Amino acid sequence: MAFKFSVLKTASDSRARLGIIETNHGLIETPVFMPVGTQATVKTMTPDELVDAGAEIILSNTYHLYLRPGSEIIKAAGGLHKFMNWSRPILTDSGGFQIFSLGKLRNITEEGVVFRSHLDGSKHFIGPEESMEIQMELGSDIAMAFDECPPYPADYNYTRQSADLTYRWAKRCKTRHNSSEQALFGIVQGGMYHDLRRTSAYQLGELDFPGYGIGGLSVGEPKPLMYEVLSELIPHMPEDKPRYLMGVGSPDCLIEGVLRGIDMFDCVLPTRIARHGTVMTRKGNLTIRDRPFAKDFQPIEPGCSCYTCKNYSRAYIRHLLKAKEVLGIRLTSIHNVTFLLHLMEDIREAIRSDTLLEFRAKFFAEYAG
Amino acid sequence: MAFKFSVLKTASDSRARLGIIETNHGLIETPVFMPVGTQATVKTMTPDELVDAGAEIILSNTYHLYLRPGSEIIKAAGGLHKFMNWSRPILTDSGGFQIFSLGKLRNITEEGVVFRSHLDGSKHFIGPEESMEIQMELGSDIAMAFDECPPYPADYNYTRQSADLTYRWAKRCKTRHNSSEQALFGIVQGGMYHDLRRTSAYQLGELDFPGYGIGGLSVGEPKPLMYEVLSELIPHMPEDKPRYLMGVGSPDCLIEGVLRGIDMFDCVLPTRIARHGTVMTRKGNLTIRDRPFAKDFQPIEPGCSCYTCKNYSRAYIRHLLKAKEVLGIRLTSIHNVTFLLHLMEDIREAIRSDTLLEFRAKFFAEYAG
Repeated sequence: MAFKFSVLKTASDSRARLGIIETNHGLIETPVFMPVGTQATVKTMTPDELVDAGAEIILSNTYHLYLRPGSEIIKAAGGLHKFMNWSRPILTDSGGFQIFSLGKLRNITEEGVVFRSHLDGSKHFIGPEESMEIQMELGSDIAMAFDECPPYPADYNYTRQSADLTYRWAKRCKTRHNSSEQALFGIVQGGMYHDLRRTSAYQLGELDFPGYGIGGLSVGEPKPLMYEVLSELIPHMPEDKPRYLMGVGSPDCLIEGVLRGIDMFDCVLPTRIARHGTVMTRKGNLTIRDRPFAKDFQPIEPGCSCYTCKNYSRAYIRHLLKAKEVLGIRLTSIHNVTFLLHLMEDIREAIRSDTLLEFRAKFFAEYAG
Repeated sequence: MAFKFSVLKTASDSRARLGIIETNHGLIETPVFMPVGTQATVKTMTPDELVDAGAEIILSNTYHLYLRPGSEIIKAAGGLHKFMNWSRPILTDSGGFQIFSLGKLRNITEEGVVFRSHLDGSKHFIGPEESMEIQMELGSDIAMAFDECPPYPADYNYTRQSADLTYRWAKRCKTRHNSSEQALFGIVQGGMYHDLRRTSAYQLGELDFPGYGIGGLSVGEPKPLMYEVLSELIPHMPEDKPRYLMGVGSPDCLIEGVLRGIDMFDCVLPTRIARHGTVMTRKGNLTIRDRPFAKDFQPIEPGCSCYTCKNYSRAYIRHLLKAKEVLGIRLTSIHNVTFLLHLMEDIREAIRSDTLLEFRAKFFAEYAG
């Protein structure tokens, strides 16, 4: 058994569902939030701290690891789990999104993408086959198909051609991928166009991947538009496969995504804003660096059970951030990652007790963006 | 009982001795190495990690805390222990050394020192009385007298006048200090001049402080000269008080200092070099950032029981350092601090079994600078 997904319960009043993913590196309760470890480390945190925060799976980035330290070094280390000392499941992205984000540094053809490294300008080629080879070397539990992610806004024709290319690449990925230890997910594209999304969902669905990413959202469009795309798309996706909304992780989007049937999320948001001195609370974000916190001896969020809130005050954390001490961004990162993972636990509990709509109403009554 | 020092054993073939310091925040076995938490944090580490590394006491810097966040904030937080979540003993320096290191930004008079903040250029005055007030607000277990630390080299007359000033300031410190919770240590000065050191030791000794710092060493002089000064000075210091060699912490200096009768050390060395990608081993320092370590899957020091060596390879740590990931300098800091604390445990064990000279011989046979 390398990968198995089971839906345990579907809500009666929304598309939200409770499930479980089984992998060789352990179980994952869904819906799940995956902290991002871009360069084989979730920034500032140890694996032990991630486990304490409640992380059941993390994501790592193929593009970054391919360039540095190189997938051959990670393979020689015995795979990514062993290299980074993380024994729970790992999902790797395909590298596509990062490469397309390089802008002028890359050129897309039918074959794949030629690009220049953001590190040293060196020239590289990655296509669907190369992405599969690299991800198999990394040894993640879940690999993602190599896709093209259109920008926002993008016109209909460009988006249609892009989704077609993603489909052809998905077939090539499936052909090349041959690891019984790793599940390969397809990625649905189609931009903001419902018919293109639907076509993509059916085409990918026919390839019978064990799970599906939804790419090309949270790329600059208004949130209501993203929610609308999800509402229209998800009924056309397989019921028995996990659905992974890529790159999304703000608290409001987690709730709205789960309600529309999303099982998996990832986002750099909690660790990125933590490094800029912003912390997440049930009332919204706090810029803990600011002066009003200088003599505030409460924890970031009273009642929060994370390591940071159990042991440190806002005043101390503010001091560390102002003094540019590493411990400051460690403590904010721990809090933010724990916050999202605890929120997801609460969401799962609300699905279990069939009270997710009440949970949402209560959450948004308190939460200020 | 706020402070008590007991000598448990003195070596038969050197001045090395085993002792114990009792404070309100717990026991300290001596000889002891104190990691430095300049800004109310030992850089990159949590208190829990320091405890795991074996730290029994840490040092924090009065000058830095006075400027940021301000000792009144730390007092309002309930003292430095509570502010930074460290429940074991803390020693604070007097601020003197940092202020004198400001160079042109300060002006010394009989009264004290006027200086400009390195942070914002604002003007401040700290004299012996102010240093005592600040350290009492911080609530450390051991406070240090406000002293003047002459540079190296310094001529005889300057050094003599400076040591006299330090003595007058020590008396003023003693007069102002009035905390039964905090022990105040005097500081012996006198540069590289044996007679001045001797005079300083006797003068300070008469003031009957519960412990003594040795200041003005490791300021640029050759190590053999420092060892010579210690050898000449220590017989003139009180036997029943702990002797603290300030700002010294390289492995060779710890061994040589203990042999000459030193009980306490502090140094930023382990955490500072860790942040530059250098790690300590029994064979000497390794620049783990370097290319040869890219595919080296051993721990930093095989057999080392620190968190870093138990879980991570040189190749992974090198990758993190090259990628400028915070976890990299966390792991090197944990290793280096543990390395020095374990070395000190071994030194204590060697004193206990009366084998310190053999230990030294064996250590230096393997150790390359």
